[in-house]
Amino acid sequence: MPRRPVAVFALASWAHRDVFPADLATRLRQLVDIDPTTTFTSFRGADVAAVLAEAEILLTGWGAPRIDADVLAAAPRLRAVVHAAGSVKTRVDPVVFERGVVVSSAAAVNAVPVADYTMAMLVLGAKRAFSRARRYATAAEGEPRDWLSGDGTGLHGCTVGVVAASRIGRLVLERLRSFDVELLLHDPHVTTAQAARLGAEPVGMDDLCRRSDLVTVHAPALPETRHLLDARRLALLPEGAVVVNTARGSLIDTEALTRACGTGSISAILDVTEPEPLPPGHQLLTLPNVLVTPHLAGAQGRELRRLGEFAVAEVGRFVKGAPLLGRVEPEQLPYIA
Amino acid sequence: MPRRPVAVFALASWAHRDVFPADLATRLRQLVDIDPTTTFTSFRGADVAAVLAEAEILLTGWGAPRIDADVLAAAPRLRAVVHAAGSVKTRVDPVVFERGVVVSSAAAVNAVPVADYTMAMLVLGAKRAFSRARRYATAAEGEPRDWLSGDGTGLHGCTVGVVAASRIGRLVLERLRSFDVELLLHDPHVTTAQAARLGAEPVGMDDLCRRSDLVTVHAPALPETRHLLDARRLALLPEGAVVVNTARGSLIDTEALTRACGTGSISAILDVTEPEPLPPGHQLLTLPNVLVTPHLAGAQGRELRRLGEFAVAEVGRFVKGAPLLGRVEPEQLPYIA
Repeated sequence: MPRRPVAVFALASWAHRDVFPADLATRLRQLVDIDPTTTFTSFRGADVAAVLAEAEILLTGWGAPRIDADVLAAAPRLRAVVHAAGSVKTRVDPVVFERGVVVSSAAAVNAVPVADYTMAMLVLGAKRAFSRARRYATAAEGEPRDWLSGDGTGLHGCTVGVVAASRIGRLVLERLRSFDVELLLHDPHVTTAQAARLGAEPVGMDDLCRRSDLVTVHAPALPETRHLLDARRLALLPEGAVVVNTARGSLIDTEALTRACGTGSISAILDVTEPEPLPPGHQLLTLPNVLVTPHLAGAQGRELRRLGEFAVAEVGRFVKGAPLLGRVEPEQLPYIA
Repeated sequence: MPRRPVAVFALASWAHRDVFPADLATRLRQLVDIDPTTTFTSFRGADVAAVLAEAEILLTGWGAPRIDADVLAAAPRLRAVVHAAGSVKTRVDPVVFERGVVVSSAAAVNAVPVADYTMAMLVLGAKRAFSRARRYATAAEGEPRDWLSGDGTGLHGCTVGVVAASRIGRLVLERLRSFDVELLLHDPHVTTAQAARLGAEPVGMDDLCRRSDLVTVHAPALPETRHLLDARRLALLPEGAVVVNTARGSLIDTEALTRACGTGSISAILDVTEPEPLPPGHQLLTLPNVLVTPHLAGAQGRELRRLGEFAVAEVGRFVKGAPLLGRVEPEQLPYIA
């Protein structure tokens, strides 16, 4: 048996437990030399220095410490970072790529539940299901029951604006194609022909806002996407429009959104916010036309092991010298979550 | 041009307006002799008697009066009832079939948004999205933020119990097959081989309750399905199970469900209830682990015209002597909504 590469877990202990349950850790030990019971959430300290000195593969995930030039200097044998979560970008400094370390992300696996959540919220948002449920729940005796017939419509026949044909954005576009909807796409990196293949009309961001009954954002958090939905653009949305955000809070100006939802002219369904979590009692948490879920769109509970399964398979491919399915190239960093 | 059959609208005025907007009414007038501006919500009175005497086709929908022996006696030329809504059963007496009147229902069209809603609620129910959103919204300063990590799991990896392979039940089963779930089906009219083709394991109702993380009911309302989920069966559900009802309130014992949800051991997402609507302040409306929406799973708003489009196409087929796609046979009545 050839020498197995040395691998090290570096992620939060809850993620270590849920993403890599015992059977996956066992499978991993057949591939690499790893201490299955230890995970590091910091790369500082004498104990981790000895481990880093030998590490060839880092298995990272939620709660992983950032890998920067100092960490690289302490890990001269490092050849691969296998990230068992959705967003690797903030965890690896560009210097990691420069040193030739291969980076893999399980974003494709985590994208599926996020797209599922987004579709669920588009279906229910179009129906105004949450605001009507809230009015039903708080209705007083003898009040007119206008929430019974309601002001909602279904998703079929709506115009849906998708912001960014990212991995998740593409999954959402694909699922929306089985609905009878008009699809608009804003993505400066997508050509008209590419948009057509995705079933969408490519539009500018202002146009998307003006025409969409529902807007769902899937852009990465970048300086140029910060407050992509600001007060001016939120004001372009048609009366009754619904904004869904499962990407990053910074894409929307929270104060402007709070004001726009406060007037009742638009609604919002948010799995991410800025700040996150919102402070107790924040107006977005109490408005009847806003639903805020606590960043749960991605893999949850039993789904977490799917990320671990992918990471173990990636390690297997790496050990065999096969191409990694989740390989992240440095030039992709500006476009991915 | 051959003589066009005489048709009459018999449905609520809101449904008349939304299901048959002007362009559909125009299309209909090319097929039949109809007064597009008049709809009847009762078959009693002198004005309607004159109309019924000539009617060959009744276009019914939400708010339609029941067609019984008296109505049939007053409508000697009646040959077809085209129902532009989901449930025709309660609208037509068996005597309608005995007289040879053809009955068509748009249930297939209405089933699509109901299945969409069900899938959305299964995705979000598995994540405990609503109870976690509620705890987020009502969290006080300094409280432990356990709703951030939460007790939910995603739908992938769950066991889902589907009650009845009805039209909607089959759509839901089909959609669930693209998830990594274990599917259980309870339907006394479905053979093991048929269940296998639907991707589900056929089980008794008690077994389904014992094994399912989520239960979604799609059975018709019948004497034998009344309180199919009663106190005893609700007690069989595993801790944390979620019950989704988009079918009829009578399928679940409301009091037993209220007690079971009140203990926090199970959760519920209900679009239908018994009684419906629930009286103001009913406990199901206030429990944090229960979401009640006001019967909005079916076609809504702009989607209603899809039912009208189907009904107009059915009238077109009837006039040409072609088979009706939505034809309801009397022997189906016990199995359909």
